[in-house]
Amino acid sequence: MLQGHQTWVFNNKPTILATAAVGGPYEAEGPLAEDFDTLHGDLWMGQDSYEKAERKMVEEACEIAIRKAGKQKQDVQFFLCGDLLNQIISSSFAARTLAVPFLGLYGACSSSMESLALGSLIVDSKSGNNVICGAVSHNAAVEKQFRYPTEYGAQKPPTAQWTVTGAGMALLGDKGDGPRVTSATIGKIVDMGISDPYNMGGAMAPAAVDTITAHFRDLGISAQNYDLIATGDLGRVGHNIAADLFKKHGLVVPAEIFTDCGLMIYKKDQPNVFAGGSGCGCSATVTFGHIINRMKKGELHKVLIVATGALLSPLSYQQKESIPCIAHAVAIEYN
Amino acid sequence: MLQGHQTWVFNNKPTILATAAVGGPYEAEGPLAEDFDTLHGDLWMGQDSYEKAERKMVEEACEIAIRKAGKQKQDVQFFLCGDLLNQIISSSFAARTLAVPFLGLYGACSSSMESLALGSLIVDSKSGNNVICGAVSHNAAVEKQFRYPTEYGAQKPPTAQWTVTGAGMALLGDKGDGPRVTSATIGKIVDMGISDPYNMGGAMAPAAVDTITAHFRDLGISAQNYDLIATGDLGRVGHNIAADLFKKHGLVVPAEIFTDCGLMIYKKDQPNVFAGGSGCGCSATVTFGHIINRMKKGELHKVLIVATGALLSPLSYQQKESIPCIAHAVAIEYN
Repeated sequence: MLQGHQTWVFNNKPTILATAAVGGPYEAEGPLAEDFDTLHGDLWMGQDSYEKAERKMVEEACEIAIRKAGKQKQDVQFFLCGDLLNQIISSSFAARTLAVPFLGLYGACSSSMESLALGSLIVDSKSGNNVICGAVSHNAAVEKQFRYPTEYGAQKPPTAQWTVTGAGMALLGDKGDGPRVTSATIGKIVDMGISDPYNMGGAMAPAAVDTITAHFRDLGISAQNYDLIATGDLGRVGHNIAADLFKKHGLVVPAEIFTDCGLMIYKKDQPNVFAGGSGCGCSATVTFGHIINRMKKGELHKVLIVATGALLSPLSYQQKESIPCIAHAVAIEYN
Repeated sequence: MLQGHQTWVFNNKPTILATAAVGGPYEAEGPLAEDFDTLHGDLWMGQDSYEKAERKMVEEACEIAIRKAGKQKQDVQFFLCGDLLNQIISSSFAARTLAVPFLGLYGACSSSMESLALGSLIVDSKSGNNVICGAVSHNAAVEKQFRYPTEYGAQKPPTAQWTVTGAGMALLGDKGDGPRVTSATIGKIVDMGISDPYNMGGAMAPAAVDTITAHFRDLGISAQNYDLIATGDLGRVGHNIAADLFKKHGLVVPAEIFTDCGLMIYKKDQPNVFAGGSGCGCSATVTFGHIINRMKKGELHKVLIVATGALLSPLSYQQKESIPCIAHAVAIEYN
């Protein structure tokens, strides 16, 4: 790989053998409801804590993806997963259930594509086969940890986003039919000095633009290469900032192919969602549900998913730090 | 890779171009003090919070490793790091300073070898060069987050371990002189039902034994292959349990080559350390300081580092969960 480059090209193009998306009640009311494999009617999901509900979604999504691929649990060679909870307990405890070699990741909401990028590297380099990659978030578990318990009814500004309750998983293999992962660009931290945790989209937009710019530069391509470029969870505010930054940098990314998973997952007038969806589960469920389904229907052939992550913690916020942001991009093709 | 196997063999044997170990006042009083590149006289390290001190150690260790290898920051292609703080802020904020593509990891105290394993995969598969891998922990930052602020003076049982204040980093390259990474075994979660966060070593010992057994099985080798097998931070209690488990499973691991970084880093009679050292920085500093130095002196030729991680969070403990544990093993050779 060339000095200064940050993009992996997967010559063997790992195959996405199957994907799964599990969601909650808000996602069931959104426009992508039909793209979920399972939708839970309430946030508890039969568990006695929101954290256990989050873990359950990971376990379900893994099980569904394995079943859809016609595989068994013992066929899975590695599991790569991340979530927003402290010490990524949802991922780790689900890894206990899955009982396969586990690599825990943390990239905040970029974890979905961090796991897909690393999982693809493992399969592409023949270092493993049948690798499960994904991420999860749960609205109430995350609100409780990052902000306030939802029962407090704390008010939010319109720039705030609504954390998706959902898990998205992909099972990757070295052969078989399905969309193929062709490249991945690993992001650098971009921090523009924003410290408002109710404006994550605005904070993350420059990181998304930085990674997309690097992706085009490393591969010598332009936005024309893709039918769809979807950022992870910039929401309405961040999406507009990203579009402005493209113009400012003289990068042509046509509005009709540039979208955001956080804008897609909820209706515009859905109550409480404010500027759109967010959370690890946002890009994970939209990509491994809706977008992969559209590829399989022949509606999309080449997509670039740019999962964005705000790498703050409640403590770093209390210590008056700004928010370091990152974005990892993965290109998927299906003809 | 064979079905059921969990070991990566690195045919190109990535080179450890340089390493760095940064420590604190307790480490300065330990028997390995001379193997640290920098030792801080107090836990604040000139910062106004323990969390910022933890981050500073990562930044220092990266800088030292880069300098020792005769490289520049801009030569570094990827940075892989993990720590114990919520949302791995020490790693992420150091990644902002380093300004290179970043992959955030979380494997608790197994993060040191998780990063070395994945970094070696990146270099071995020619997906990157000059990759920095490592992990960090800070005694007071970790105590405050996982247990009580140290100022409370909470009492501890003798099975408790003392979190190492230290950062260990390695700079990996595809050529050059230095110890070589030859293989890595990615661990599965092992949970024997222990829920006492003051007996981490006991909880993690079965995971270490599971990974070492898998490593021997996958490569068709025995303990004779190594001059030294060092677990991460089992401490006195866990080390004895691991030795017992080897006997029980009929696995011969001679006592004279089997040790633990948590037993090495402090003197046996050093105050407060109880059953030994722990934390992400324990295996990271002992490996990337002392052990690599011994290899360079010709005292050791083939070592297996088995970093162990207890994947609990304060919340999972409060919810009465047991502790899922994991261990990742990396083999390093130098002739």
